[in-house]
Amino acid sequence: MTKRVYNFYPGPATLPLAALKKAQEELLDFKGTGMSVMEISHRSKEWGEEIDAVTNLVRELMDVPDDYRILWLGGGASTQFLMTAINLQVTGKPMNYINTGGWSTKAIKEAKLYGDVNVIASSEKEKFSYVPTDFEIDHNAAYLHITGNNTLYGTEWQSWPDVPDGVPLVCDMSSNLMARVIDVRKFGVIYAGAQKNLGPAGVTLVIVREDLLDRVPDDTPTMLKWRTHAEKGSMFNTPPVFPIYMCKLSLEYWKEFGGVAEIEKVNREKAKILYDVIDKSEGFYKGHARKDSRSMMNVTFTMASDELENECVNEALKRDLVGLKGHRSVGGMRASIYNAMPLEGVKALADFLIEFKESKE
Amino acid sequence: MTKRVYNFYPGPATLPLAALKKAQEELLDFKGTGMSVMEISHRSKEWGEEIDAVTNLVRELMDVPDDYRILWLGGGASTQFLMTAINLQVTGKPMNYINTGGWSTKAIKEAKLYGDVNVIASSEKEKFSYVPTDFEIDHNAAYLHITGNNTLYGTEWQSWPDVPDGVPLVCDMSSNLMARVIDVRKFGVIYAGAQKNLGPAGVTLVIVREDLLDRVPDDTPTMLKWRTHAEKGSMFNTPPVFPIYMCKLSLEYWKEFGGVAEIEKVNREKAKILYDVIDKSEGFYKGHARKDSRSMMNVTFTMASDELENECVNEALKRDLVGLKGHRSVGGMRASIYNAMPLEGVKALADFLIEFKESKE
Repeated sequence: MTKRVYNFYPGPATLPLAALKKAQEELLDFKGTGMSVMEISHRSKEWGEEIDAVTNLVRELMDVPDDYRILWLGGGASTQFLMTAINLQVTGKPMNYINTGGWSTKAIKEAKLYGDVNVIASSEKEKFSYVPTDFEIDHNAAYLHITGNNTLYGTEWQSWPDVPDGVPLVCDMSSNLMARVIDVRKFGVIYAGAQKNLGPAGVTLVIVREDLLDRVPDDTPTMLKWRTHAEKGSMFNTPPVFPIYMCKLSLEYWKEFGGVAEIEKVNREKAKILYDVIDKSEGFYKGHARKDSRSMMNVTFTMASDELENECVNEALKRDLVGLKGHRSVGGMRASIYNAMPLEGVKALADFLIEFKESKE
Repeated sequence: MTKRVYNFYPGPATLPLAALKKAQEELLDFKGTGMSVMEISHRSKEWGEEIDAVTNLVRELMDVPDDYRILWLGGGASTQFLMTAINLQVTGKPMNYINTGGWSTKAIKEAKLYGDVNVIASSEKEKFSYVPTDFEIDHNAAYLHITGNNTLYGTEWQSWPDVPDGVPLVCDMSSNLMARVIDVRKFGVIYAGAQKNLGPAGVTLVIVREDLLDRVPDDTPTMLKWRTHAEKGSMFNTPPVFPIYMCKLSLEYWKEFGGVAEIEKVNREKAKILYDVIDKSEGFYKGHARKDSRSMMNVTFTMASDELENECVNEALKRDLVGLKGHRSVGGMRASIYNAMPLEGVKALADFLIEFKESKE
């Protein structure tokens, strides 16, 4: 019997068990080809069907309009920090950013290499414990960039900002992609490293409105233009085959599960269970995020002392509840409960947290 | 019983069966963690041990000196085309390139965005059927870039060019990494997309001499500096975990196999078997590459007509010999016989080619 734990790691993170089992089953012989999916040419008919299938699944599950292109790229979301600026900057127009944590900060750093950046709001002074709602977007901005969910601090945009006409909204959704129903039309670009909500590390999904592909200067390196990859169906060069394939298996599972509306319903239930434990703990567990900015994906909290937090993490491990240590920027504990964390895992964690508190009374 | 074929695809390509079996065995529970290797945090102890292990295997198998850094990056070798120029250009110095085929041509195109490129030799006029040996390297060149093996045309550097003092030799070894014993000291930088000789698609190995990490301008985007990744042990951002893990499993197999010297011995035997079939076929099979430039990795040949070639490819398929259609730039047929293609597969192909010829007499 294979051992499996409940894995609360912030990413790479837990994957649907059904996807892993399917991958295991056909790892040596993919669809009767006598080869692993890792071994077949990316120019083969078999692989062409795979990348079409996963692209269509994204389009269907997120209801992506026809005038948006769906790209599968290497290099992680960190590479999209610079590609966003390279592909969308317009001479003379400021790039607008809202700083909600470590990932936003990194994105801003890269954009500054390419022109005038205006950080129109930031929650840095309050330890990134909330998502700003009071800001003014430059009417001539090249774009507005936001980080959809902040894994380190456990905050998340509850509703999306309204942008002036002609200012594309760019969102790093690495940690909350498909976590709730969204209207893709509100966005110019959505990008996401796969390793939290979509699949394993090694591939980044980019959804970009077609007209935005034309902004990039011609003398940009080939691999850094979204247009290059859009024109070649993400096959300008060899794509990260296995990570893309795992995304496909995961998305097949989510389609069967009921799609994003059903994922959202369970995500809301999961988050409520944990935040209720925090809120009813009379200060034993202290949530880091302001209530109006709480993340459905990363529940961050601290306790009275480092010793108590360490004891709690270690006791959790004994119950096969793994990966609960918080990021050093906040400390304490963090339960990452992405789409693939089952409700049962969250219930097991909640039960444990209640018992741990009682054991200290 | 799992079906397995002999896979002559040019990349992604065949992998050691032992590596695939090991991956399959532990896909749901990696080393008793109760998680897949795809699901564990890249900051976990378990993953730290994995990336150290694969890095040490490269160092050991290729005898990489201590003053060279070993990096695992996303984005493919195509991203290294531009990163080479970004990281090694020196204002006022020409970048030297030798053009031996499609990959060199692409690398040259990217370098031209960053400064003065001098293509000191090219075999383009002879359909890239040989590797030039007559050229003069600029004594003040920023670097000399070569493509170690040319997958499209089936040519390969037989011995490495001597570079003037102070001119680093940069080699794209995507398709002949670890195919024969080399002296890493001859090179400033070696890079290789994994999907031919090392593992699956999605990760690129870069071996770079430490002193060359300092050339890059400070205002370069973070992800495009080799130094960023060297300073963080390839963990500045989430690395492509599963592709790296597969490289580790493959290299464990190669170590057991006897290392690069043993790989080279078998590679020479494999290539000789196929070239002998061509040379003894009295023109039935015509090799594309000049004999003094023949590749050990990609054996390219044409036949009297497209119809005959198609028939040959289709007959081969019936014997589970897959992926033999040549690249459109040469046409005809191509047998890619990378390290992981077993001797038995090459013998089966040779037997088939002889019989096919006889069937036409």
